[in-house]
Amino acid sequence: MIDRKHAIFTQVNNVVGTLNVLFAIREFSPNCHLIKLGTMGEYGTPNIDIEEGYIAIEHNGRKDVVPFPKQPGSFYHLSKVHDSHNIMFACKIWGIRATDLNQGVVYGTMTDETAFDEALINRFDYDDVFGTVLNRFCVQAAIGQPLTVYGKGGQTRGFLDIRDTVRCIEIACHNPAAKGECRVYNQFTEQFSVLDLARIVESAANKLGMAVEIDHIPDPRVEAEQHYYNAKHSKLIDLGLQPHHLSDSLLDSLMSIAIKYRDRVDASLMLPQVNWREPKNDRRLQMSMPTRSAAADSRADHSPSTEVKAKKG
Amino acid sequence: MIDRKHAIFTQVNNVVGTLNVLFAIREFSPNCHLIKLGTMGEYGTPNIDIEEGYIAIEHNGRKDVVPFPKQPGSFYHLSKVHDSHNIMFACKIWGIRATDLNQGVVYGTMTDETAFDEALINRFDYDDVFGTVLNRFCVQAAIGQPLTVYGKGGQTRGFLDIRDTVRCIEIACHNPAAKGECRVYNQFTEQFSVLDLARIVESAANKLGMAVEIDHIPDPRVEAEQHYYNAKHSKLIDLGLQPHHLSDSLLDSLMSIAIKYRDRVDASLMLPQVNWREPKNDRRLQMSMPTRSAAADSRADHSPSTEVKAKKG
Repeated sequence: MIDRKHAIFTQVNNVVGTLNVLFAIREFSPNCHLIKLGTMGEYGTPNIDIEEGYIAIEHNGRKDVVPFPKQPGSFYHLSKVHDSHNIMFACKIWGIRATDLNQGVVYGTMTDETAFDEALINRFDYDDVFGTVLNRFCVQAAIGQPLTVYGKGGQTRGFLDIRDTVRCIEIACHNPAAKGECRVYNQFTEQFSVLDLARIVESAANKLGMAVEIDHIPDPRVEAEQHYYNAKHSKLIDLGLQPHHLSDSLLDSLMSIAIKYRDRVDASLMLPQVNWREPKNDRRLQMSMPTRSAAADSRADHSPSTEVKAKKG
Repeated sequence: MIDRKHAIFTQVNNVVGTLNVLFAIREFSPNCHLIKLGTMGEYGTPNIDIEEGYIAIEHNGRKDVVPFPKQPGSFYHLSKVHDSHNIMFACKIWGIRATDLNQGVVYGTMTDETAFDEALINRFDYDDVFGTVLNRFCVQAAIGQPLTVYGKGGQTRGFLDIRDTVRCIEIACHNPAAKGECRVYNQFTEQFSVLDLARIVESAANKLGMAVEIDHIPDPRVEAEQHYYNAKHSKLIDLGLQPHHLSDSLLDSLMSIAIKYRDRVDASLMLPQVNWREPKNDRRLQMSMPTRSAAADSRADHSPSTEVKAKKG
């Protein structure tokens, strides 16, 4: 959503990468099981229950089960929708086995394995482009900034603990799709609105003796600020997923990390620099960078976060 | 469907081209009206009636109007679906006006304007990649080859006369979409199955004193050979379209052209050279071509029909 170049790079990168994988599977390993990490963002926020990939429709007296209509909310999420359509077609014509994991917003940074050593610690994105809302709220609470809710804060999404993400992929591996089947699982464990999350973080911070304010700022995105949201997510549970709940992991996993590393936080990264209503956005960070070489310029075209990551390291 | 390179070129070409147009509209001419020539092939062949772009769904006691689920049948048609999703999103976030004309299979080569002079005559594709079924049947009848029906021939699609195509675009121009509206019209006038068409051409040829055979050959595509098909197409009629019917234009416009130019027909182009079940297809024409320069090779990568057109001219 930054500008034309980023939109085109994102869509070409995902679409071409996925097509290459599909043709490679067909040619070299037609029986392997493709697991794609998709996103719940493919569905958007329809006014009906969101099913897991397909919906049974009765229309003018006839019935069919069809792909759930997709109304994604960004050029990135659109690229994942394009991939889903391409994968579904490859399964149909070539008999490929695929599982599309429509993942919710992941929180947490540690699994049992990464906890062995600090060197294994995971990314903790909190900036306005790659950061997710819960990470940002925890970081804002840790450094004493108000939590910045976009608009009314009624935007509701599915969330899951990073340990559940890893487990879901494991479950998909152990239960491969049938030949020609394009299976879709909605991979999240709990739904929250943005305002729910702000209040949960506020309450957790209070328990740690920290005062927290909640600010409502204009929504830089084009999205419903209040809407119906009820997405099904029973298939992975049926296959054995035992969810971790946010209430249990917030203090341990998120707040404690944010507080432990708060001296590294760049407080200037919190506020949105990309207005989705505009076709191009000049971000402050780019403008404040020293003159770059041609090679660096070319890298910057390919990764919206080059500068952000450079500052974070 | 020829191979990986053609699939990737087709998708990148359509997706990037359309994204560029959308960003250009937003930046330089936000009030203009985008008319996209789409295709009925975006819908596939669901077991329910096909609506014009959107469908009202009642699900678990709640209602919404959502984009009609897309199940296209080739990587080309998938690229048009990707474009439709991108256009719909641009209308939503930027208030762009768009009309998506989901066109059926066009037949005929002449409008009143092109009829002024033979130099204005239109393409008449009958080869296995770009040719459409009705053109091929007319050419096969004209040169005394059997009409090649793929499989059972129950594949049913929407069709329209080229004069109606032009009129539909004119109607869309004169009735622009509202700001932020992504309007979808199904642009065809009659439905036929492949076997229906073969019999209609046979009967027309008989009237001209020509004997015609109908052959059923194995279907090189992955598609339902018998299926329900009922696609709505009333919106353009409501705006004033007065359809030409195949029964009236077949002899005048199609058979007569095929017969008039039958000495130019390359009879080797009729049979399918692309098996959709395979990830790559070596076509006879490519193999029979003389050694080409690097530049010609690079052009060939970008256009599946380079060799075909060269032979046709």
